[in-house]
This record gives sequence, structure tokens and C-alpha cells, in this order.
Amino acid sequence: MKTLKTLEPLTRRLLEIQRVNSAASVLSWDQETYMPAGGGAARAEQIATLQGIAHQKLVSLETERLLGGWLDLHTGLPLEQDGELWDESSRALLREVWRDYSRSKKLPSDFVMQLSRECSLAQQVWAEAKAQNNFKLFLPSLRTVLSLKREEAQFLGFTGSPYNALLDSYEPGSSVAALAPLFAQLKAHLIPLLTKIQQSRLQIDDSFLYDAYEQARQLEFGRLVLIAMGYDFEKGRLDLSAHPFTTSFHPTDVRVTTRVYEHDLPSCLFSCIHEGGHGLYDQGLDPAHYGTPLGDSVSLGIHESQSRMWENCVGRSRAFWRFFYPILQATFHHQLRAVNIDQFYTVINRVKPSLIRVEADELTYNLHIMLRFEIEQDLIEGNTNPDDLPAIWNSKMKQYLGVSPANDAEGVLQDVHWSMGGFGYFPTYTLGNLYAVQFYEQAKLEIPHLEDEIAAGQLMVLRRWLAQKIHRWGRMFPPEHLSQRVTGVSLSPEPFLRYIDRKYGELYHL
Amino acid sequence: MKTLKTLEPLTRRLLEIQRVNSAASVLSWDQETYMPAGGGAARAEQIATLQGIAHQKLVSLETERLLGGWLDLHTGLPLEQDGELWDESSRALLREVWRDYSRSKKLPSDFVMQLSRECSLAQQVWAEAKAQNNFKLFLPSLRTVLSLKREEAQFLGFTGSPYNALLDSYEPGSSVAALAPLFAQLKAHLIPLLTKIQQSRLQIDDSFLYDAYEQARQLEFGRLVLIAMGYDFEKGRLDLSAHPFTTSFHPTDVRVTTRVYEHDLPSCLFSCIHEGGHGLYDQGLDPAHYGTPLGDSVSLGIHESQSRMWENCVGRSRAFWRFFYPILQATFHHQLRAVNIDQFYTVINRVKPSLIRVEADELTYNLHIMLRFEIEQDLIEGNTNPDDLPAIWNSKMKQYLGVSPANDAEGVLQDVHWSMGGFGYFPTYTLGNLYAVQFYEQAKLEIPHLEDEIAAGQLMVLRRWLAQKIHRWGRMFPPEHLSQRVTGVSLSPEPFLRYIDRKYGELYHL
Repeated sequence: MKTLKTLEPLTRRLLEIQRVNSAASVLSWDQETYMPAGGGAARAEQIATLQGIAHQKLVSLETERLLGGWLDLHTGLPLEQDGELWDESSRALLREVWRDYSRSKKLPSDFVMQLSRECSLAQQVWAEAKAQNNFKLFLPSLRTVLSLKREEAQFLGFTGSPYNALLDSYEPGSSVAALAPLFAQLKAHLIPLLTKIQQSRLQIDDSFLYDAYEQARQLEFGRLVLIAMGYDFEKGRLDLSAHPFTTSFHPTDVRVTTRVYEHDLPSCLFSCIHEGGHGLYDQGLDPAHYGTPLGDSVSLGIHESQSRMWENCVGRSRAFWRFFYPILQATFHHQLRAVNIDQFYTVINRVKPSLIRVEADELTYNLHIMLRFEIEQDLIEGNTNPDDLPAIWNSKMKQYLGVSPANDAEGVLQDVHWSMGGFGYFPTYTLGNLYAVQFYEQAKLEIPHLEDEIAAGQLMVLRRWLAQKIHRWGRMFPPEHLSQRVTGVSLSPEPFLRYIDRKYGELYHL
Repeated sequence: MKTLKTLEPLTRRLLEIQRVNSAASVLSWDQETYMPAGGGAARAEQIATLQGIAHQKLVSLETERLLGGWLDLHTGLPLEQDGELWDESSRALLREVWRDYSRSKKLPSDFVMQLSRECSLAQQVWAEAKAQNNFKLFLPSLRTVLSLKREEAQFLGFTGSPYNALLDSYEPGSSVAALAPLFAQLKAHLIPLLTKIQQSRLQIDDSFLYDAYEQARQLEFGRLVLIAMGYDFEKGRLDLSAHPFTTSFHPTDVRVTTRVYEHDLPSCLFSCIHEGGHGLYDQGLDPAHYGTPLGDSVSLGIHESQSRMWENCVGRSRAFWRFFYPILQATFHHQLRAVNIDQFYTVINRVKPSLIRVEADELTYNLHIMLRFEIEQDLIEGNTNPDDLPAIWNSKMKQYLGVSPANDAEGVLQDVHWSMGGFGYFPTYTLGNLYAVQFYEQAKLEIPHLEDEIAAGQLMVLRRWLAQKIHRWGRMFPPEHLSQRVTGVSLSPEPFLRYIDRKYGELYHL
């Protein structure tokens, strides 16, 4: 039987490529956290150079020689003369390496470098445009990135919409055909529920969330929760950035970031828990497989399931706050002394259609995603002129959420993703929401007294379960297969909708 | 006439190589500032991979094709058939590229990667050994690095001592034969002067320097001085690290670090000024030449001349403190209210043989260097067993400085350099001291009322002069030639010794 041992010459090559990619990630992390403003242009070129090198190495004759010894480089099928059987890990490794190889092979190295460079630059322009609340400033960069991403879709090839090529980059196997009905089902359920909630007579006063909370203490509390979750600070850090994110250079060096505002308690708090969920996944990957697909996360949807599960299923649960609220209350005694745990629970779960995706409640969050899904599909298919984006954005916000941005900074400019070239990225957030609940329901079945453990601050039990069921497997199982293995069934919106109905039914006495 | 334009295909290639090297520098900076402890092993491999790639690209057939079109790759001489004349910049560029190429060509890429990896790891072991005050812990790493550096000397080739091959890496053209008489002359002058000072009846009470000084305010003051020097925070940062250093990823992104102790005012203060001097050099390099030798600093000796000039000639001068002392006094009113400017000037210039190089006064500093110069020459030549280092160190400290370390942390383990493979690096500090005074004397001749300007806080006049005379030229002129251009004469210890005699003669009433 052939095993990973057989593939060592190939995995050594992959390891070298991954080290270059990890270096590029360090440069990106630095760009978002500590880099002085003046360094941006040079940094864009440095990252592009590294990504170009990694790309060239992946599609090089040397890699082809190593990979082509085991499978047909055009089809990815095992070579016929290869009579011996491969073990499961090796089969998975070859399947996933071929996926990466064949996608990369379709992209010229020059194109990869150009895309990298333009996205680094566009990201800096976006930040400036957002700060200045000036969409026109961002428009030329957006056009450039959009045109490159449309070109990328052509290079990659697709059936149906060119948007499918990009969706598949982030969530292997996903497509408009698969997502549209899913989103329609969610919309059909959530919009009436939202109306019902808005008609409920319950008035929730959330003003205490926006009192003054000392920033250093907010960070300290965020750090405390991360430690309780099992996020290992010997192998990670928590820093500040404009847009919270998680990045990993190796399972022994995973970085999460947050932001902190004096007059916004939930922002830092839930960012920390959310990014901590991502961080646990990256710290839970098997370091022995670093550099190969078996040491890589399986998809953005699955990654997001980890962050959303921790943020929402855990971080917005009564059980979690039974342990942590007394600590939070002691930390901010002055602001919270008159707020009891039930009030706190109610307020952090209130449904309130709002302008900003990352601050949205669990119900309206998916409406934010649908709007982006529809807009980016149209952009990539060429049905929308980028000039019209602010108007389209505002009209859809009104239609789905009943709110209107006062300006583009809190409207179409709010997210970094399009500047990074992340068209096709947003839908993975909704997939993450669905997977999160599906996995969490399973965890509750399998872990004895999970919610009691959480209520006792024992978050590690969940972390261990996730590491065992999901993290350690890397890309061994594609998302759909992983869902089957973990929960016995395919991805379905039902668990999520049941969870939402139950949670908000109780909260709003529906 | 052939110009830099002619060389564009070559400089494009160099630019790509430099971007990889700059990326490696970002990874090293991160390692020393923010990297979590657990990330060290993976980081060593990532840096080694980048350095291996940069090395391979520099010695590749592609680079050889581009360079070999203009000169003989074995001798570095222009090709005979090349009748046209090159302009001065192009000649310098080819000369220096060939220097880099031919040195690199002698080193196998595997060796470069191994050296990089072992040095990253040894640096981490050194930090641990120093913290634990345990030389034996560091010994195996030291042996490994030493043996690799001896191997490197063999690869590079040398005449006389193998140590010459390493000296030349840091200071082109330097050798034991050139340095030994220089150091002997310094020693012959400085040791009797030290004795005279020690016999002087002047008692200087420096205890106020070790009162409690709030760390955040120390950093704020350091930052203020950096700004006054012209260090551009739009293109730079100030961070904390165990060992202060400066690194540059591009003239638009130069990072300096310092350390700060509550009970040690001079440490953070003079580190900031010192590293700021390095930072100004790196920010003053011509960004248009980034990636080529014309956009690179000329040698470590010249680099150190910039840091030492700012630290000592400026930062320990009466003129400087005439402007800054009132600000320092206002910042630390409680600690400094009873200390007048003359007392302060005297105390920061007191001569006191001490254990730690970086805290040494201007006179004894060079004795710290001589001791290291002698020890590392013996190590590289194989005359010393690394086991014996603590004993040798302590005995030379006693002999030259009359002091004895109580432990190895404040003795042989104090410096990071050997763990980094920096054998041959230390002598450039003394060269820097000599160049610093020689350049500064020239600045005083050429800049009208320089010391009055400094006394008015107008440090920029010096910065502009240095940028014009030194920074912007990159490696256009080798160190010796640069010295001639700037001061009209070769490097000489005379200006330094005159400066020392004058400064301490006045201070100690000799």
C-alpha cells in the first residue's frame, strides 16, 4: 500500500511553496497591523513577488514531475499503470494537490502577481476612501480589481455563471445553482420572521452597550475569553486592526486581530470570540501536515462555521454568560451594575436591522450576505456598472432590511472584501452560519452536558470536540463530506432555521 | 555612453531578489518584536526558504546571463569587446553587483539555507540561555554556528586569516592586517587615558539616572527626539525588542526598536537616538535605486558611523541638551528637578568601566570591541575552544576594563551577534566610532553654526547634510572612497582621539 511516505518528495516541494505563502501572509498581517502608511506601495510589490514565486513553483516542471508520477496532470485521475492502492490520506492529498495545481496552472504567473499587487494597492485605497467617505476615490481601484477577477474567472473556466469560478475558489463545489435556492429558502423564512419581531411590542433598551468602556479593559476581557476557549497565546497573538481578521503562518503561529471602541462594548467582545473561533481552527491543524492540503483548512464556509459557532451559538448563549457575565460585570462595575444577566442576554441578542454587516444580529446577518451575493454576481456577470453600486446597495438595504445608509462609508464601502478581490467570499459567511448550527447541535448530542460545561467556563470541551471532528483533518474531506461525517447529513438550512425560531421565539415571546 | 537605463533588465532582476530579501527582513523583524515564542521553529524555516530563494536567484543562469553580458563573471572586469564607456553610476552598480554575485556564487544554496536556519534557531536559544544565565545551554548552538561560519570562510576564500573573509562581508576591504594596528593605536591611547581618568579626584554621582522613570514617558521622549532628528514615522516605526536594532524593507518602511527599563533612563534614550541614526540612513537611501547596490547602505562601519554620530557626537553634546534638557526635565520633573544641565551633561558622559558594551561610555566602548575582535579572530582561526569562552571573556574584561562579570548573562552571553552568525561584525562598531567623529568634524566645518542649530533643536540641518553627503549615494563609493569624498582624507583614528582627549580632558579637568 502506498502512503504519505511515498509522497515525501512531493510534500517536501509543497512545504517549500507553503513557506513562501506563509511569508506572504506575514507581510499581509504586518500591512494590516503595524506597517507605516508610507510602506504600502513597496509592500504590495513584495507580496506580489512572493505570490508570483509560490505560483511559479506550484506549476513548475519540477512540481509537475513529482505530481505527474502519480496522476494524470490533465484530469487528476490516478495513472492506470499504478496498480497499488493508496491509503486514504494519500488519496486525499493527491486529490487536493491536483485541485490546487490545476487551478493555478490555468493562471499565468504574471496575472497572479498583477492581481496580488492591484489588490494590495486597492485595499489601501479602499481604507482611505472609507475614511474619507468617498466612493469615487475607490471606484478606479474597484474597476481594476473587478476586471481582473472577471479575467480570472475566464482563465479558470466555469459552467453557467463566471461567478461560479470564483465561488469555487473559496468553497469547493459551491455554485450559484446550489446557493440561490438555499438563500431563497432562508429569505422566505427570515423576512417574515423579521417582520413579526418588528411588530412585537417588546422594547429592548440597548443604550448601556454604548456607554464608555475603557479600551484596555475591553481587550483584557477579550484575551481572557480567548484563553478560556483554548486559544494558545504561546502560538498566537491578539493585535488591533481596522478590520478584524485571523491569519496563520503555521499552527504554531496564528494571529487574530480585533478592534476596540470606547463606546461600543459588543464590537471588541464579539470580534475576539469570532476571530478566536477561526484561530482555534488554525491552531488545531496538524503541524505534521503543514505545507500539504492535509494541514490546511478545508474551506472558508467551514472556517466561518468555527468563528460563527463560537461567536453566536456559544458567545450569545445564556450558558456562556452564566460564567462570564459576573466577570464582565466586575470588570465594568460602574456601567453594568444595574444590568442583570437576563437583560444582558436579551440586549446582545436583540434583532435590529442595521447598516453594518459585522454588527448584525444572527437573523439579519444573512440578509446582509444575500444582498452582497446578488450584487457581486451581477458585477462579475457584467450586468452592473460599478458606478451604480451605491444606489443599488442603498436600494437593496431598504428592501431587505428597511434601513438606508446615510453615507457610503456605512454603506457600500463598509467591507474590505471587494478591494481584496474577494468576490465570491461573502456567501461563505452564510454557509458558515448554517454549518455552525448544524455542527453545534451535533456537539450538544455528543458532548455530555455541553451547556453545563460552558456555564462552568469549561469551553475546552467544545474545542477538543471540534479539534477531533474537524480541525485535525485539514482538507482530508471536502466540505460536504465533512458535514456528512460529523453530523450524518448534508448541509441543510433546517437546523439553523429551527435554532433561530427557538431563540427569537423565546426572546420575543412569539 | 551606457547608463543605468542600459542595465534595466539586470536591475529588474535585482529588484525581484531584493523583494525576497526584504520579505525575509520583515519575518526577522517580526521574530524579534511580536512573534509568539512557539512560532520560532517554523519561522526559522520560512526565513531560510526565502534566503535560499534569493540566493538561488542571484547565482542563477538568468542573472549570470544578464550580468555576464557586461563583465567577465570570473574576474568582474568589463568585457573587452565592450568599447563604449559606462557612466559612473553604472560602473559602480556593476562593480557592486559583481561583488555580491561572486561572493554568493561561492556559497552553495543549501549551505545558505542551513546557515540561515541555524542562526535563527541559535538566536532563540541564545535569548533563552541569556535569560537563564546558562552558557552551557547556548554552547551547542554556538558550536554549530561557529563551525558553519568557519566553513563559510573556506567557501569564500581568504588570504591570511579566515577571519578576513568574514570581516570583508561586513566592511568591504577590511582585514586583520588593517584593523590590528588601528586597534593597537587606540588601545595605546585609551588605556592610559582611562587610568588617568580613574585617578582623577572627580566624583560623579550618577544615581539619579536609575530612579524610577515611567516607561511610557521614556518612549514618548525617545519618539520626540526621533521626530526632531527627522526620522519619518510615515515611513517608519518604533517598537520594543530585547536587543535594539534597525531594519529596513524599503526606504519607505524602516523599523527601529528600543528597550525601556523603568530604572534606567539612558538605556531607552540613547538606544532611540542610536537606532534613529541608523534609521535616517536607511530612510535616506534613494528609493529609485531600491533593489540595486546604489540603493543599499555601503558598509556596517559607515552605518554605525551614523548611529554613533547621533548617539554620541550629537546626543551626548552640551548643544543637544541645551534644547532637550528642559523638555526632559519637564517630562520627569520629580526625578530631575534638582539636576541642572551641567550635572546632567557630566553624568551622561562619565567614564565608568562597565560590563555591558551597549551601556559603555565613548572611551571604554572600544575596549569592549577589541576584546571581541581578539576572541572572534581566535574562534574563527580555531585557536580557542568555545568551552573556554567564559573564562577567556572574564579574564580579558579584567585586563582591559578592570571589571569582572558576576555571571555569563552580563558577560559572554550579553550580545546577540555570535548567535546570529555575526562573527566579524563587532569591529565595524569601532570603525563606526572613528568615522562618526571624522564625519562630524567635517559637518561642523561645512554647516554654518551647526552646534547653535543643534542647541536650537534644529537637528534637521545635520540630517540634510548627511543625506546629501552619505545616505543618497548608497554603495556608489566604497567606504574608504566615501571617507575621502566627504572629509578629504582616509579613515584615521586621529580625529576620534582628539575628540576624546578634548571631551574628557574638559570633563575630568585633566
